[in-house]
Amino acid sequence: MTRTDTRSPAARDTTTREICAQIDRLVDARSARVAAHGPHFAELWELAVRRLQGGKLLRPRLVMGAFDTLASGTTAAPRAAALEIAAALEILHFSFLLHDDVIDEDLVRRGEPNLVGCLVAGKMPGNTIAAPPADGSGDTTNRTLHWARSSGLLVGDLMLTIAHQIIARLHLPEHARTRVLDLLEAAVTETVAGEYCDVGLADGAFVPDLSLVLDMTRMKTASYTFELPLRIAAVISEAPPAAEIQLGEVGRHLGLAFQLQDDLLSAFSPSDSHGKDQFSDFREGKETALIAYARMTNAWPSVEQLLGAEGFSDDSGRRIQRLLTECGAREFIETLVQDQIRTALQVLTRDDCAVPQATSRFILGLVDSLDGRRA
Amino acid sequence: MTRTDTRSPAARDTTTREICAQIDRLVDARSARVAAHGPHFAELWELAVRRLQGGKLLRPRLVMGAFDTLASGTTAAPRAAALEIAAALEILHFSFLLHDDVIDEDLVRRGEPNLVGCLVAGKMPGNTIAAPPADGSGDTTNRTLHWARSSGLLVGDLMLTIAHQIIARLHLPEHARTRVLDLLEAAVTETVAGEYCDVGLADGAFVPDLSLVLDMTRMKTASYTFELPLRIAAVISEAPPAAEIQLGEVGRHLGLAFQLQDDLLSAFSPSDSHGKDQFSDFREGKETALIAYARMTNAWPSVEQLLGAEGFSDDSGRRIQRLLTECGAREFIETLVQDQIRTALQVLTRDDCAVPQATSRFILGLVDSLDGRRA
Repeated sequence: MTRTDTRSPAARDTTTREICAQIDRLVDARSARVAAHGPHFAELWELAVRRLQGGKLLRPRLVMGAFDTLASGTTAAPRAAALEIAAALEILHFSFLLHDDVIDEDLVRRGEPNLVGCLVAGKMPGNTIAAPPADGSGDTTNRTLHWARSSGLLVGDLMLTIAHQIIARLHLPEHARTRVLDLLEAAVTETVAGEYCDVGLADGAFVPDLSLVLDMTRMKTASYTFELPLRIAAVISEAPPAAEIQLGEVGRHLGLAFQLQDDLLSAFSPSDSHGKDQFSDFREGKETALIAYARMTNAWPSVEQLLGAEGFSDDSGRRIQRLLTECGAREFIETLVQDQIRTALQVLTRDDCAVPQATSRFILGLVDSLDGRRA
Repeated sequence: MTRTDTRSPAARDTTTREICAQIDRLVDARSARVAAHGPHFAELWELAVRRLQGGKLLRPRLVMGAFDTLASGTTAAPRAAALEIAAALEILHFSFLLHDDVIDEDLVRRGEPNLVGCLVAGKMPGNTIAAPPADGSGDTTNRTLHWARSSGLLVGDLMLTIAHQIIARLHLPEHARTRVLDLLEAAVTETVAGEYCDVGLADGAFVPDLSLVLDMTRMKTASYTFELPLRIAAVISEAPPAAEIQLGEVGRHLGLAFQLQDDLLSAFSPSDSHGKDQFSDFREGKETALIAYARMTNAWPSVEQLLGAEGFSDDSGRRIQRLLTECGAREFIETLVQDQIRTALQVLTRDDCAVPQATSRFILGLVDSLDGRRA
C-alpha cells in the first residue's frame, strides 16, 4: 500500500526510507487480519497507521545508525533484524504516545489532532462516526470523548502487542534474541514506572522534589528513547560487552538531556515549534524539573497560584515563563542539559572506550541535529 | 514469596496449585527489577500482584486440562512450556481486566475494590497515598480518580508486556513457538476489536443491532478465553491439525455461550454472585445482546428511558429486569446459550472428530462446572 509521506524531504535519506518501508511492510502484513473484524475497526486501524507514520523516527534512526557503524566490516551481521527492531521501536513509541495522550487528556500531538482528536472531530474516513454537536452540548460530547479516549487506549494496546510480536519473531541466535527481549522488558518497565511517577506527581499523589522529578524524567523517556536503541544495536551487531555498557551510559545521559530540553521547549517555545498546545504543561500542572526547581525558590508562591489553575490563560502562561526565568529554574535546567551532554561525550572519549569512532561520530551528529522537539 | 491464597480450597487441585506456583515464579522473577524503580512503583506492583492472584484461572485451567489430555501417552511433550503459557494467559487476562475497568470507570471487580478502587481508597500498603477527603470534595477527588485510572492503564501495559515476554521466551521448537505467537496476536487483535465495538456501542458511536452486538460479544471474550487456550494446547502437544481446528470451533461456541451467560448473570443475579455492582451494565447503558434484542420489541421505549439514565436507581434496575423478561429478550438469550453449547457438543461427537475423548470429557466437565460468573 502506498501512503502519502508526511515527512520532510530532507529527512528521507536511504536509511530513513528503509525504515519507513519496513514499518509499512509490518503494518500491511496485519491489515487483512484487522479488516476481518469489520469496517469500524478497519477504519480505526487506517487512521492509527497514518498517525504512526508521522514521526521523526528518532529511535529507529538510532538503532540503524549505531548498528551500521558497529557492524561495519563484519559479514554476517543481521541487518534485516536490525530494521525490524527499528520499526518495532517506532511502533512501541507510538503506543506510549497514544496512552500518554489518553492520560494527559490531550487532543493535539505534533501540531495536529492526535488519534483521539481526530475521532472526536468525526474525521473518520467514510464519515461513519457522528461528530459531537456544534453547540458542544454536554452528554453527547462527553460520550464522544470517552469513546475516543477508550479507542486510543485500545489502539495503544494493539501497537504494544505488535511491537512485542515483531521482537519475539526475530531471526537471531537464541542468546541475542533473549538479550533483546531482556532489554525491551527492562525499558518498558522503566517507562511505565516513569509515567506512573509523572502522573502521581501531576495529580498530587506523590510529594514532589527535584530528585524524584529528575528520576521520573530519566525513567519515562531516557531509557527507551536512547539507551534501548543503542544497546540493542550493540547486542545484535555482536559488539564487545564493554561497548554495550558504555553505549547504555551514553544513552542515559543523552536521554535525560533530550527530555529536559523537551521540557524547556514546552515551557518557553511557541506552540508550532514543539507540536503541542502552547503552555499545555503549565495548564495541566505538569511536575517538570523546571517546576521542581522553582518550588525551592521565592518564586514558588506566585508560580503555584497560576500552575494548573482554573481559568488558566495565555497570560498565566507568560507569567509562569517570566517567573521560571527570574528564579533561575530555566538556567539551572539549561546547565543540566549541557552537563548531561558533556558527560556523554566524556564516556565516548575515555581511553577505555570500546565504542568505535564511527559510532561515536554518528551519535554526536544526531545530537547536533536534535532540537529536542518531541520526536 | 508466600502470599495469602484467596482461592477457595475446593479449586486448589494439583494443576491449579502448579498454575499458581508458576504465576508466582514469573512474578517474583520481576519483583526486584520493579523495586529498583523506587518504593512508589514497588507498592503499586505488590497491590497489582495481589489482584492478579484473585482469579478463577479459567484460561490456565483450559490450557492445562486440554494439554494433559492431548499429550497423554506422548513422552517429550513440553509440559513446562504449557504451564508458562497457562500463567501468561492469566496475566494477559488481568491486563484486559485492568483496561476494561479503566474504560468502564468501574471501581469494583470480583466483589471487592479493583486496583483503581484500592488506589482511590488510599489502601496502598505503607499508606503513602493521600486518600480523597472524607467530604468527597471535587477537585482532589477528581485528581485522585485520574491518578488511579492512569495507574490502572499503566499496570495493564506492564502486564500485557509480561504476557508477551513469557510467550516470546518459550523453549519450544521454532515452528510451535511461531504458531503460539500467531494465535496470541490473532486473539489480542480480536479482543481489542471487540472492546472497541463494545465501547462504540455503549457511547453511541455505532448504530446498534443484534448481529453487531453478537459479533462484539464473540470477539471481546470468546476468542481469548476459550479458543486461544484450546488451540495453543493443541499446537504444543503436537495434536493433528484437524484437532486444533475443531478445538477452535468448540472454543468459539463455548466462549460465546460463556459471555452471553455472563450478560444474563449481570442482568438478573444479585451483586454478590457475579462480583460487580448490581445493575452496573444497566447503569452504564451497556449494549449487551439482551438490550439489542429488546430494541426490536415493543418494550424498547420503556427500556430506553431507564437504561444509563441520569438518576438511575435500583428500582430502575428492577424495572429493566422485568421488561427484558416480558419482551422475550431473556428467553431468547437463554436459548442462544443452549444452542451454542449444543453446537460445541456436536463438533466433539461428530464421526470425523479428531479430538481425543479424554479431552472432550475434560471440556464437558469444565463447562458443567462453569456458572458463567466472571472468571
